[in-house]
Amino acid sequence: MNNPKQVLIVGLGLLGGSYAMGLTKAGWQVNAIDVDEYAIAYAKERGIIVQGATQKFESLVQNAKRIVFALYPTAFVEWVKQYKHLFQQGLIFTDVSGVKAGVVESIQEMLPQGVEFIASHPMAGREVSGVQNANTEMFRPANFIITPTEKNTPAGLAFAQVVAEDLGFARICSLSVQEHDKMIGYVSQLTHAIAVSLMCASDRTDLACYTGDSFRDLTRIARINETMWSELFLENREYLMEEIDAFTDTLQRLKGYLVDNDRESLQEMFHTSTQRRSAFDKK
Amino acid sequence: MNNPKQVLIVGLGLLGGSYAMGLTKAGWQVNAIDVDEYAIAYAKERGIIVQGATQKFESLVQNAKRIVFALYPTAFVEWVKQYKHLFQQGLIFTDVSGVKAGVVESIQEMLPQGVEFIASHPMAGREVSGVQNANTEMFRPANFIITPTEKNTPAGLAFAQVVAEDLGFARICSLSVQEHDKMIGYVSQLTHAIAVSLMCASDRTDLACYTGDSFRDLTRIARINETMWSELFLENREYLMEEIDAFTDTLQRLKGYLVDNDRESLQEMFHTSTQRRSAFDKK
Repeated sequence: MNNPKQVLIVGLGLLGGSYAMGLTKAGWQVNAIDVDEYAIAYAKERGIIVQGATQKFESLVQNAKRIVFALYPTAFVEWVKQYKHLFQQGLIFTDVSGVKAGVVESIQEMLPQGVEFIASHPMAGREVSGVQNANTEMFRPANFIITPTEKNTPAGLAFAQVVAEDLGFARICSLSVQEHDKMIGYVSQLTHAIAVSLMCASDRTDLACYTGDSFRDLTRIARINETMWSELFLENREYLMEEIDAFTDTLQRLKGYLVDNDRESLQEMFHTSTQRRSAFDKK
Repeated sequence: MNNPKQVLIVGLGLLGGSYAMGLTKAGWQVNAIDVDEYAIAYAKERGIIVQGATQKFESLVQNAKRIVFALYPTAFVEWVKQYKHLFQQGLIFTDVSGVKAGVVESIQEMLPQGVEFIASHPMAGREVSGVQNANTEMFRPANFIITPTEKNTPAGLAFAQVVAEDLGFARICSLSVQEHDKMIGYVSQLTHAIAVSLMCASDRTDLACYTGDSFRDLTRIARINETMWSELFLENREYLMEEIDAFTDTLQRLKGYLVDNDRESLQEMFHTSTQRRSAFDKK
């Protein structure tokens, strides 16, 4: 088509703002809805979006053929419930949620015929928030995961794919909702649970001046958006609890080697760790 | 004094090699001993050291007024036991060991009058080894900790201080041996124990392509030198076991909130974590 691709972004925070910035750069015409007047004004002034609204956004929704929801999971589900009567036939939309099972089922069930939700998860983020921190650099090394169900069509998949391509993600792949949530329980949620526990185990801020880079790297994610992450953790609690148990058992095994002064078993564990970690190096 | 400062480095691996490189740049005359002929030849060719030996190093030791031992803790203690008869009166030496109690006590006890060991710990390292990877950049953001005892003199402290200054460490500070080992149990050893346990909990290398930066950051240190770290862990096992217990209790508390679906307590924990972590940001 000769017309520019158009998309409406609902939720113009860090991630929504970065989507808006990246898609605008890639030639899309981007509109946005947010509760914050400042976010909309900021994005319009800088040419990140064309049109925007905080209230009276009905026509923006009604005219949208493609939408990206960049909201927290529960807010996303609530929004769709409340405004789905505005969706036009043929609408395809995606999201950015970090957990999928609860979100995908509830939303796909409530949609009318001819409206499609293709779920996706951009595995990128920052310890800052707001459209004023938007940047597209964070997408370049990151994974974009699409989690289709039997309700999705090739057109839906193509939309998620082109969004990811135009935003410049390093790798685009597809997982089932269950595979996704189990994977995320390990690579993302368990690591956040660990970083938070390390910070909360005792108040050791007096040690700040002695810490090296390894401690800083490990706890960088302990600065955590409490609203979003409590949602993500609770939505995925079954998988996350399993991961916490498996990890705790292993750490206790290591402690056992200390109790027994068992150098050989410690070395064996370090050897396994080193071998496995090498598989995670960036290629 | 007009003569250049001279130092002998025993152990020309990554850290010893980087010391040699940095001190040579700062105008010292650096000699070295290592078991590996290649390491000595490499360093001489590149002007990192002046003289070097793998065997017949007696005269190098006998002529040294200042030595840095860049060996693993047990090898360091053994070396001093075996060759301390070569030490000249007035010799001052330091080390690079990551744990202090066992090393400092054993060595200070066995030294003759007039020979001084001032212990220090450069909190810098890499996941690579060998003099061929030597670089002084790793010192620039790092802490250098001196752990004096009642056996040390102002001259000993001054030696450790000038080495740290000439290598360009960001911050030089002083801790008691016990404070040092307790601190290291938390900021360094516990974090390594966690990263290793995360890798060993199950073989998830199939997930490599889905991991984001937070997982990579958290597990970077899971590539671990098994000989050195098993020594460091066992030398410091009492403190490390305490830290593992405190951390495990906290992670289990977090899991309890998941079991109870307790959003409020989770948020509170994330809030504490975020506040405390901000104290660890680089100033």
